[in-house]
Amino acid sequence: MMLTGMHVAIIGGDARQLEVIRKLTELDAKLSLIGFDQLAHSFTGATKTSINEIDVSDLDAIILPVHGTNLEGKVNTVFSNEKIAITEEMLLKTPKHCTVYSGISNSYLDDLMKAVNRKYVQLFERDDVAIYNSIPTAEGTIMMVIQHTDFTIHGSRVAVLGLGRVGMTVARTFAALGAKVKVGARRTEHLARILEMGLEPFHLQDLEKEVRDIDVCINTIPTLVVTASVISKMPAHTLIIDLASKPGGTDFRYAEKRGIKALLAPGLPGVVAPKTAGQIIANVLSQLLFEDLNKRKGKV
Amino acid sequence: MMLTGMHVAIIGGDARQLEVIRKLTELDAKLSLIGFDQLAHSFTGATKTSINEIDVSDLDAIILPVHGTNLEGKVNTVFSNEKIAITEEMLLKTPKHCTVYSGISNSYLDDLMKAVNRKYVQLFERDDVAIYNSIPTAEGTIMMVIQHTDFTIHGSRVAVLGLGRVGMTVARTFAALGAKVKVGARRTEHLARILEMGLEPFHLQDLEKEVRDIDVCINTIPTLVVTASVISKMPAHTLIIDLASKPGGTDFRYAEKRGIKALLAPGLPGVVAPKTAGQIIANVLSQLLFEDLNKRKGKV
Repeated sequence: MMLTGMHVAIIGGDARQLEVIRKLTELDAKLSLIGFDQLAHSFTGATKTSINEIDVSDLDAIILPVHGTNLEGKVNTVFSNEKIAITEEMLLKTPKHCTVYSGISNSYLDDLMKAVNRKYVQLFERDDVAIYNSIPTAEGTIMMVIQHTDFTIHGSRVAVLGLGRVGMTVARTFAALGAKVKVGARRTEHLARILEMGLEPFHLQDLEKEVRDIDVCINTIPTLVVTASVISKMPAHTLIIDLASKPGGTDFRYAEKRGIKALLAPGLPGVVAPKTAGQIIANVLSQLLFEDLNKRKGKV
Repeated sequence: MMLTGMHVAIIGGDARQLEVIRKLTELDAKLSLIGFDQLAHSFTGATKTSINEIDVSDLDAIILPVHGTNLEGKVNTVFSNEKIAITEEMLLKTPKHCTVYSGISNSYLDDLMKAVNRKYVQLFERDDVAIYNSIPTAEGTIMMVIQHTDFTIHGSRVAVLGLGRVGMTVARTFAALGAKVKVGARRTEHLARILEMGLEPFHLQDLEKEVRDIDVCINTIPTLVVTASVISKMPAHTLIIDLASKPGGTDFRYAEKRGIKALLAPGLPGVVAPKTAGQIIANVLSQLLFEDLNKRKGKV
């Protein structure tokens, strides 16, 4: 699997993009790096350039940072002071087959990509990426629980809410450390899986009853489940970690009022393991670029 | 099991002693607390007093902080500014059966206890305490590895040196998180146990060869095993965590010279999980006090 002959622009981003650059140069892609002028390291096969100099009519793919752009279309980059914006004018000059990749999207990018009619892939919406990312997320959660409690995870009572891609990893990992893990879910197949994993299943409709004896509550559900009423039933020393996307699923205002520590922790992979998080993106991205290339060659 | 009628002095210490106080008052011991005057909380059955006021001739046991005293006999306490010293004069006034407890000892306490001829117990030398403490030690190690690397523990190559009380816990815990764990030992029964645990055993005489492909090295052996020569064979990104008692088993000077991060991490239980660490001490201590009491009553 090689990417010989593909021209890819990597525009902005943080340390995670370095793994993408490393991987794609290994696979012999032709890279144009925009927003990396302050990076001391240089990569064979990759050319540092700027948003004004690049000839976008030659691009097969554009890789944006994990967060895409801000709501004005500006791209954040930690390796440059260059002001970089992704505009309709620029994207319309790319070939019709040019694909744009980001981690997550926003209304600016959604509207823009519809207007220019280019293929747009949000990597973090993919199940495989979410599952790979759940590994550093679980480790970041472990770190936070160790930092914010005065007891060991081993032997503590942990409630995990949701058995999705992140919930399953977190539940399994805390159980592996010796915690007594119960998992709240609604779907019968999830309750069955929790039991199969050797953990204690409970239905989320019983959440208020189930939190009465816990030490740690880890929420992965992106709707308000950890309500004021639920929090009021928790022991005073309970630590709440909310892993759901912003704004999380916890009534943080009430938790603070009651003096219960509640922490919203999105984006842990890039914080606790940027190298691994970058490799996850690089591996999936190179696979997708390879499929793109083969499709155009008529091989698939 | 109750400690009714026992008079115990708890002299100095940190948050861990609060768990000891809690447990011993639960068991109905009569407690004199020295060095706790700034503690807002009060415990039923426990009297706050000072080193000058206490009548030591009535004491059945004296509980010193985990670290005992400094080399001048001074006791450290985080809940008081009182200057407290443990002296020969004071201990000679205690009943012959009065037992003194600390976590670890030093030359001052060793000499003093010999001079006064009282029973002296160092809790941290006990196998059970060391094994219980290995749990928070392993969690503290996890926290440090997450904080000081840019990759996940999951999938990383970890070498644990020594299969003692701490080494076994650390090896098992890192394996449970998905690390590829190899364990270095010398004794054939240890090499057999490592294999039984599903981990990769190697003889410590091959250490230089075995560190060539690792990401993390966790030493638990209190002699110089991670020598300059061993460090010179490690990949540049390797993180060394040394859990052995001071001064550890690593050539820290050479590690720094080579630019390899090496951290000495003694006393993790009191740092990452003071409540659990206190409960460990409290549980073992109450058992020992109970045995003492019964022995004097002629029941055992």
